[in-house]
Order: sequence, then C-alpha cells, then structure tokens
Amino acid sequence: MPFTTTRFLLARYLLPILIGCGLGTVAGAPRGKAASKASTVADILASTNPSDWRSPDPENTLYMELDAGRVIIELAPTFASNHVANVKALARERYYDGLHIVRLQDNYVVQWMDPDTEKPELARPIQQAQRRLPPEFDRPFDRRIPFTPLPDRDVYAREVGFSDGFPVARDRRSGRMWLIHSYGMVGAGRDNDPGSGGGPELYAVIGQAPRHLDRNVTLLGRIVQGIELLSALPRGSGPMGFYEKREQHVPIRSIRVAADVPPRERTPLEILRTDTPTFRALIEARRYRREPWFDRAAGRIDISNLPIPTRATPPVGTSGTKNP
Amino acid sequence: MPFTTTRFLLARYLLPILIGCGLGTVAGAPRGKAASKASTVADILASTNPSDWRSPDPENTLYMELDAGRVIIELAPTFASNHVANVKALARERYYDGLHIVRLQDNYVVQWMDPDTEKPELARPIQQAQRRLPPEFDRPFDRRIPFTPLPDRDVYAREVGFSDGFPVARDRRSGRMWLIHSYGMVGAGRDNDPGSGGGPELYAVIGQAPRHLDRNVTLLGRIVQGIELLSALPRGSGPMGFYEKREQHVPIRSIRVAADVPPRERTPLEILRTDTPTFRALIEARRYRREPWFDRAAGRIDISNLPIPTRATPPVGTSGTKNP
Repeated sequence: MPFTTTRFLLARYLLPILIGCGLGTVAGAPRGKAASKASTVADILASTNPSDWRSPDPENTLYMELDAGRVIIELAPTFASNHVANVKALARERYYDGLHIVRLQDNYVVQWMDPDTEKPELARPIQQAQRRLPPEFDRPFDRRIPFTPLPDRDVYAREVGFSDGFPVARDRRSGRMWLIHSYGMVGAGRDNDPGSGGGPELYAVIGQAPRHLDRNVTLLGRIVQGIELLSALPRGSGPMGFYEKREQHVPIRSIRVAADVPPRERTPLEILRTDTPTFRALIEARRYRREPWFDRAAGRIDISNLPIPTRATPPVGTSGTKNP
Repeated sequence: MPFTTTRFLLARYLLPILIGCGLGTVAGAPRGKAASKASTVADILASTNPSDWRSPDPENTLYMELDAGRVIIELAPTFASNHVANVKALARERYYDGLHIVRLQDNYVVQWMDPDTEKPELARPIQQAQRRLPPEFDRPFDRRIPFTPLPDRDVYAREVGFSDGFPVARDRRSGRMWLIHSYGMVGAGRDNDPGSGGGPELYAVIGQAPRHLDRNVTLLGRIVQGIELLSALPRGSGPMGFYEKREQHVPIRSIRVAADVPPRERTPLEILRTDTPTFRALIEARRYRREPWFDRAAGRIDISNLPIPTRATPPVGTSGTKNP
C-alpha cells in the first residue's frame, strides 16, 4: 500500500529539506544518540508480530540444489512475468539439472548455464520452454504495486524503495519502474542482442550493486537464503571471471519450483514484509544506527545497504529471528 | 592537483543541471550510443601513457602473506598518519606473523587479529607499537590534497572523488574530509570506545560498500591486489561472521612493509593515477558505457563502482594492462 501518513511525509519530504539546511551536524549526519528514534534493528526484530512476516509463494520460489546445500530464489512475476514463467518451465523440464556454475567474477556476479550452449551438436535441448524472450528490462509504472520508498536520494534513479520484498526504482516522468541490481538479485544473462536472454543462462549479484546494469538486463528474482554457497566459490581466473577449466565448474544438482517439492522437503522460511510500519521502522533504524558501537549515525541509506530479514518459520507462538 | 578546466566545470556543475532538467531520456540516462564520448574503458586503458601510472611507495605498502598467496595493501598516511605509522611498527616487530583471519561476514568484512587479545595471559605482547590510538575517522579539509571529484551526487556525502588512488568524501561546510568504505578498503577494528582501535585488529571490506561505517572507524589503506584471496574464504557461521572453531581460522604467515622485502621478492605493480585526464576519461567511460552490450548508459556512477585499474609493471617500452 502506498505511504500517506503524516509521519512518513515528514520523513520523506521535510527532513531532507531540514538536513539540506544544516540541521544535521555534518552533511545531515547527527552524532551520538541525540537524534531520531531510539530503536535498533535488533530491537525491532525482537518485537515483530506474526503479521510482519510472510512466507514466499512456493509457486514463485526456486530451490537450486548444490553439493554444498540449497540456494533459495524468490521470483518476481510482477516485474518479469514472461521470464519468470519461462524459468519455471525450464526448471519443470529439468533443463538446469546437471548444468554448471561457469563464472564467478569477484565483487560482481556468479553465472550458471550450459557451457556448450554455443555448440548446437552438444547444447542441451530445450523442450517446451523458450531459449530467448523479448526483454523485460522495466515495466509500466503502476501505483497499485505496493511501494515503500526510501527517504534518501539515489545516485541512479529518481525514486527507490521496496515492492513485495524486491528493491525497485521508479520514474513517474517516464512512467516506468524496474528492479534494481542489489546483492543477491538474479537475472537472465544475454548476449549483445537485448532479446537474446530468456532464462537458460542465469546470474546473481555477489558484490557491490552493479547499478549500471539496471534496465540493461532482465532481473527476475532474488536469493533469499543460501547466497553464501555462491559468494564464497572460487573466483574464475579467465576473462570476466569465467572458470578456465571444465573441472572448475560447480555442478548444479537440480533447480526445482518449490511447489513441485514435497512439503516436508521444503525449507520453512519467512521474509519480513516490506509494506508495514515495522519495515519502515527498520529503515529508520538502519539510517540512524543507535547501537552503542556507532559514534555517528549516517542519517541516510543506500537501497543496496538494506538487507531484508528472513527467519526460519517459527513454531506457533514463538518468534525466532535472524538479523542479517 | 585540483580541477579547473572548463570541460570539467561543465561536467561537474552544468551537466547535472541539464540532466535534472530532463535532457536525458529517462532520469538522465540516454539510450544507445548517441550521447557523450565514444571511448570505452578498454579503449582508454589500451592507450595510456607511462605517466598515467604510478608505483606504490614500498614504504607505504604492506604484503600480507597467506598460504594462498600475497595480498597487497597500499597505506594512506595522508588520512590516517598515526594509524599507518603504528601498523608499520606492528608489522616491523612481526606482531601479525602467525595471527589469523578470524571472521568473514558475507557481503561485509573480513577481519584478522589475535584471537586471544582479550586474554592477558595468552594475548600476543606488543613491543614498541601501540595497542590503541586516538581515532582518525576524518581529517581537516585541505585543498592541497589532490582530489578528482565525481560529477554525480552521492547518497552519503556532499562531495566524493579520489585522492591519490583512494575514495574520499569531502565536506567544505564542516571543513572535513575522510576515506570512504568501498570494496577493498582496510581499517582498524575497534570496540565501542572510539579510541579502542589502533591497528592490532584489521578488517577489509569484501561486499557492498558499508558507508554507514564512514567516520565511525579509522580507514588506513586499500587492497590493491589479491583481494580474491580474502573474499572467497568461507563465511563464518557465528554471530557477525566469526568462525566458530579455531581450526577454521586462516593463518597469516606474515605482514611486511614492502620496503623491508628484498627488491627481487617484491611484486611489480602499477596503479592508474587518479589525478590525470586519463582517469577523468575513465570516469566518463564508466558513467556512459559504450560497449556494444549496453542498451542504455546510466549516465551516473557511484564512487564504489569505480575500480582503479592496476597492472604488472611492464618491461620498458610495453604497456600490458589489466582491466578490473
């Protein structure tokens, strides 16, 4: 739901003006514990309600199974409906099973695909799904899509915030909105032709948010658990971080739509909702860090510095929380 | 040297205004290859002159030797003179030799220290160096320090750019300047007391730039080669990414001041200067990506998305370049 409370309008529009006028000690960064609210991230997560959390839809969740464990990807059909449908179709025809992670470029991306995709006689065939799709780099602006804006400016876009757990940029003038290349975001690799992606080749961001890729490639989901199984893999020594030898490739046992996995084999996982007062309080707690360690609160935050908390689905009546 | 050319003033002050007025197609992001200059990063690096490069001063360079290889850190005495002197003193009394990497928090930091530092009977003694120093979180603004500003706004600071190869923020109103927490930056870990750092405990950024740490902890250098030997290490499973078992600790063979290493054992390394027309062209090439893959140039860049090229010192008369 869109924000309309007075408190939020104050934070979004008035505070930046006050800060710009020198209210903050230095560049809007008050020192010590004097300013803003007293809550820390830990305080907020310790006092959430069950309604602050959601379970990702198994029909829009992928399980990537590696020898090291399970990587969980939440899909974003609101932003890339065709790509999401195609990736699910690829998973359902078991296209990804036995493929490999072929590239890890330090501080950038990890990529998995059929390494023989350029060799027709060796490439794995695709049955019902598509090999290529028209790009879904962005989509029409739609105010019905929930959007929790950040109050701070962004280097790359007019407006940034969160929609249903995904980092999103919006531009009302041009009437477009799009997913942002933050840590853990998953996209459909492509060649120079913008229409050459589609899903057979996927990548995930494992470093500094490469925002110059925004609207140049179709993002379709986000890793919500297990990214450390990818980010700690060896860096490729070839150009662009490709592994130079076949034996360096990391096998993918399978990629499955969670809905196709027997319920008892699914991972019980909840994600903090991004359209609640609790999440807005979390944003403030990250903008103004109140933990005793901090000598100075930044008073601002970059969209890519706001990890979204997840937790194992608690037994009824409890509330175990993981603070990322 | 400070920038005063007309071209640069145009880029710094006029272009943002034009962009703000809607010159760009969408939020200042022109599409295709129509706008700005035609050079790519590769073009620029292929045509550098020897004077575009510098060799880091061995007296302000550290070699951290791991079983996996050498990590090279360039120190920043301009910004943290006392900490730099103390870290060199610690290295020279061999304080770090045989210590361990004890923490790696995914998308955040890697940290090395004496794991017994809290236990007086077990802690490694310090001879001539200091265990604690007053903080050097920032320093007085000084226009004599070379500064190549970025033309784009920043989320956290009034002004950002590069000084002698380091990412730097400046605030003329408050008269302060400071190093920025970008990928590869190295700092002196501390406890809650701002004066509890000093150098015995060091950390490096291995993920999304944690800018909320700026001015909260003393940065003293930057990893200029070998960060992948740290960033690919296993993530710690304990709180804040600490390794839970001693056997998970990663040993540090030694940390040496490069000047103390016999010349034939030093790594021949050059770093692209950040105060040249070549570097300014590189910034533009990163703001407006012209490689054929790109469908849309961002037209902006975040300070932490500008890796500084390094290369092996070429034999006289050649110019081999590594494009990070």
